[in-house]
Amino acid sequence: MKYQLFYWPTIQGRGEFVRLAMEEAGCPYEDVARAGKGGMGALMKYLESRSVARPPFAPPFLKAGRQVIGQVANILQFLGPRHELAPKDETGRIWTHELQLTVTDFVAEIHDTHHPVASGLYYEDQKKEARRRSADFLDNRLPKFLGYFERVLSRNPRGDRHMVGARLTYVDLSMFQLIAGLTYAFPRAMANSTRQYRRLLALHGRVGERPRIAAYLASPRRLAFNNQGIFRHYPELDA
Amino acid sequence: MKYQLFYWPTIQGRGEFVRLAMEEAGCPYEDVARAGKGGMGALMKYLESRSVARPPFAPPFLKAGRQVIGQVANILQFLGPRHELAPKDETGRIWTHELQLTVTDFVAEIHDTHHPVASGLYYEDQKKEARRRSADFLDNRLPKFLGYFERVLSRNPRGDRHMVGARLTYVDLSMFQLIAGLTYAFPRAMANSTRQYRRLLALHGRVGERPRIAAYLASPRRLAFNNQGIFRHYPELDA
Repeated sequence: MKYQLFYWPTIQGRGEFVRLAMEEAGCPYEDVARAGKGGMGALMKYLESRSVARPPFAPPFLKAGRQVIGQVANILQFLGPRHELAPKDETGRIWTHELQLTVTDFVAEIHDTHHPVASGLYYEDQKKEARRRSADFLDNRLPKFLGYFERVLSRNPRGDRHMVGARLTYVDLSMFQLIAGLTYAFPRAMANSTRQYRRLLALHGRVGERPRIAAYLASPRRLAFNNQGIFRHYPELDA
Repeated sequence: MKYQLFYWPTIQGRGEFVRLAMEEAGCPYEDVARAGKGGMGALMKYLESRSVARPPFAPPFLKAGRQVIGQVANILQFLGPRHELAPKDETGRIWTHELQLTVTDFVAEIHDTHHPVASGLYYEDQKKEARRRSADFLDNRLPKFLGYFERVLSRNPRGDRHMVGARLTYVDLSMFQLIAGLTYAFPRAMANSTRQYRRLLALHGRVGERPRIAAYLASPRRLAFNNQGIFRHYPELDA
């Protein structure tokens, strides 16, 4: 079965966490809104048509056969067991999902560093508030989240090469994306804390070298980071 | 099995979404941090002890036998099928969870109306920003989320008395809590939009009259809303 991913065509955004899982799994998928004419129309139909009984709230959503699944963590929970990106035991799966939900929380906070007032306003209209929020983010929230994920790695009874158990799961791929994005957005802050997060940075390095991920990153399928996505680089917000 | 809920003892907060599910299910549980001396210590141990291999990021978390489960939506996904608060079919369960994850997103935005700069600062230190964010919230975000949930009710092929299918699920209980909390926090804005959200308000009414929920609401187990939780009433932030 070929999956269809519905996401905005010009940003990595939240869709990237799903793309990375499908790329690592090597499963065929169509990135609908980027695939050609009519793609954006197909995406908008799911959001706006009255004939959709179970409309997603927002992209990304995944079409798998007749099923439409929204919310990143929900999509990953669906894909994980089907493509060997989740533990086999239920307890391990619940723990993996718990970590992914903490990624969701973190991503919302990362977004709000540049949009603390309103996602519908331009950055330029909330620059002052963004400076205050970003300063607190770098002082308190980033260390809280990354410190937590680093701790999870260091306490994994099966070793600090994976977040859960002894094999790669989708949450390792999400750690890769978090580190990549934060390094793009806050290069100075991240450069100052390489020791604190050495396990996470090593994980980021290993994931980026996996054959399918490396091939993906070098392909045109991987969009570049830019200042329309979640992770944005505004030097005035960095450390 | 008696569950143990770990959550801050003085607020409804995120823990309330879990409490409502356990109350409706009639399953025995201990609200650990409120249950007596040592409760807060037990909660903090899970967050801080180095001997916990899989530490939760934050309360609430639920102990079920030896398993510790964090993140509200994850806990509800665990409890739902065990206590007839989730659909029987996998597609229905994924959809219910997707809706709950949108509740999670909404709750974070509700919190940030009074804490748009930093959760670690007092409201008084971010009042100006809170006014801007709340104005946008009431104009754009609240109608976007509640309009969506109202649409989900109206499109449910099994009728508009439930969010999913023809029976109560945990997401109906979360809708109850959202409406209750928003009415406490933003009474004027909510009074102005009773027509727009008439199905959600009716659902809120029906849930509140269910025997176990009504008994819970009248009991000392239900904490009152207050200005330390997610839903806070600051008249200057209301419509």
